[in-house]
Amino acid sequence: MDNNQQPPLPLAVTMGCPASIGPEIIVRLFAGQLEKDEGLSRCVIIGDLAVLRQAAADLGIALRAESWRPGQSLQKNTLPVLCPDHPLPGKVTWGQPGLDTARAMISYIETAARGCMDKQFSGMVTCPISKEGLKRAGSPFPGHTEMLAHLTGTERFRMMLAGDRLRVVLVTIHEPLARVAALLSSERIQDCIAMTSQALERDFGISNPRIAVAGLNPHCGENGMFGNEEQEIIAPAVTSWRGPGQVSGPWPPDTVFYQAMRGKYDAVVCMYHDQGLIPFKLLHFQDGVNVTLGLPIVRTSVDHGTAYDIAGQGIADTDSLKSAILLADMISHNRQQRIKGQ
Amino acid sequence: MDNNQQPPLPLAVTMGCPASIGPEIIVRLFAGQLEKDEGLSRCVIIGDLAVLRQAAADLGIALRAESWRPGQSLQKNTLPVLCPDHPLPGKVTWGQPGLDTARAMISYIETAARGCMDKQFSGMVTCPISKEGLKRAGSPFPGHTEMLAHLTGTERFRMMLAGDRLRVVLVTIHEPLARVAALLSSERIQDCIAMTSQALERDFGISNPRIAVAGLNPHCGENGMFGNEEQEIIAPAVTSWRGPGQVSGPWPPDTVFYQAMRGKYDAVVCMYHDQGLIPFKLLHFQDGVNVTLGLPIVRTSVDHGTAYDIAGQGIADTDSLKSAILLADMISHNRQQRIKGQ
Repeated sequence: MDNNQQPPLPLAVTMGCPASIGPEIIVRLFAGQLEKDEGLSRCVIIGDLAVLRQAAADLGIALRAESWRPGQSLQKNTLPVLCPDHPLPGKVTWGQPGLDTARAMISYIETAARGCMDKQFSGMVTCPISKEGLKRAGSPFPGHTEMLAHLTGTERFRMMLAGDRLRVVLVTIHEPLARVAALLSSERIQDCIAMTSQALERDFGISNPRIAVAGLNPHCGENGMFGNEEQEIIAPAVTSWRGPGQVSGPWPPDTVFYQAMRGKYDAVVCMYHDQGLIPFKLLHFQDGVNVTLGLPIVRTSVDHGTAYDIAGQGIADTDSLKSAILLADMISHNRQQRIKGQ
Repeated sequence: MDNNQQPPLPLAVTMGCPASIGPEIIVRLFAGQLEKDEGLSRCVIIGDLAVLRQAAADLGIALRAESWRPGQSLQKNTLPVLCPDHPLPGKVTWGQPGLDTARAMISYIETAARGCMDKQFSGMVTCPISKEGLKRAGSPFPGHTEMLAHLTGTERFRMMLAGDRLRVVLVTIHEPLARVAALLSSERIQDCIAMTSQALERDFGISNPRIAVAGLNPHCGENGMFGNEEQEIIAPAVTSWRGPGQVSGPWPPDTVFYQAMRGKYDAVVCMYHDQGLIPFKLLHFQDGVNVTLGLPIVRTSVDHGTAYDIAGQGIADTDSLKSAILLADMISHNRQQRIKGQ
């Protein structure tokens, strides 16, 4: 059989915390859409079959979900669910996570990541987990990304937030604002530029991508009047870049996102969390996708939390999950094409 | 004659740097609009009649502009121009400021501010000046706002950026990002809340205004995991507020602007320049208005710079100037109504 004719590998979607909005957004997104959307029809849920059925029943949604094992073919009109070795003992109470649900959500991530490394899956999409749950279950990791870096043996990784109108990549992430300036280095910024350039070319299929690097201070410090990180740290990282793509900056933070939104840049490299997240969430509050750059596997994530306060109500928006699935599908497709083309 | 029947005072519009885009945006905005727009028909330009005529001639625009003195009535279809005692000696070269133009632009501001203090004008709107020009002319002030604070004897003032979709007020402005956290204090934040509350009620006519206070750190520091300024400095300023309005926060910086844009808040109090300017410019790049809070006079400004690189080409956008004039007109009207109502 010709290699080109093999069906694409399934895409793993982890259910996230069983007591969160994860199960309901999966059920609501997939109900009635499995036949319509090619990207969705390639998904396998890594989660708990009983909890998904509970969510469907509670919301009055008709959805055929069945147990699935790696290697089985995907059946039409049926949501395949792979449950790791930690099935939950009974019904979950929406919005009330416990030790059981915390352990379960971790097992979904581990199963999906291993499946990606073993080439059982083309990539993985994650639904939200809670930091408190990780801590409660004894996990040493503060979040998905660090756990996935560990599971895949990755040292250098970055967070990209991607949407139709804006893509941002963060040089520093969850740090006090007061520490940001001290954490910047030309090397760290160049690392971020390199991963952004690679991702735009390989994963997004953008040749010779245009990457804007934001400054740190208001008006880029106006020639050192209020801050000189632009001249001392950021500009050297930009000017010494020799890789592919058109890299420019540092640009004044208060105008670069407007220019990017208008199509001037394919991505903006940001010095700190809110520099990137404020404009990103303004444009993509509902449908933003979190992409981890630097991993050997494809990983995207919804751009929202567990939302325990509204779990089980059927009102959580499914746009981010859908965007995350379609983007992971596109990235894995683009990587596959590159491998074939080599 | 009844006080209510007196015509409203004229509004002063300073021409800004004569070599900048100031003259051309005035000429282009007012040409043909003087009759149509009531707000514009109350304006007096504080600037140089010859330069305005030069701009009109260079751009092929028909505009009747005449010299005006305080106390004269405004004539229909004629742009009144008050020239202080520093007329420029000859034609200006667009984009090429000198000592003459720097001195002239300062005299426009001084004349307008004094006229406001003397109740000759209802308020003032400023076109852009350059920081380099101020320095060259020996001015000790870094910008308009500080100069106006001095001219009006004001110690406490804040910058608001206002647009239809978002209003932001800045607790710190032109400071290195690394210094922001150290500059915050509950008192400083409360000062900002107080001025915001007063401006929304008195100047914008919003009763019981809803004011959101942004946090400083990503996710407001997640209970001290990355930063504790929220608990130690910002929350106390919010909870101890006893003045008018509904003040809430600190809110996570990456979602509060989305909520404000959707109409949940009338203004967002921001801890640093780019926290407020990034979302503001994304929404109001063309038509944003800078409003100085805390002055005894009404003052708005265009939200852009001198743009020497495109001066004289007739391509600079006039939206921000128009918005600044209409907003100053509204604010002075609202203040006048309050005085009458007392």
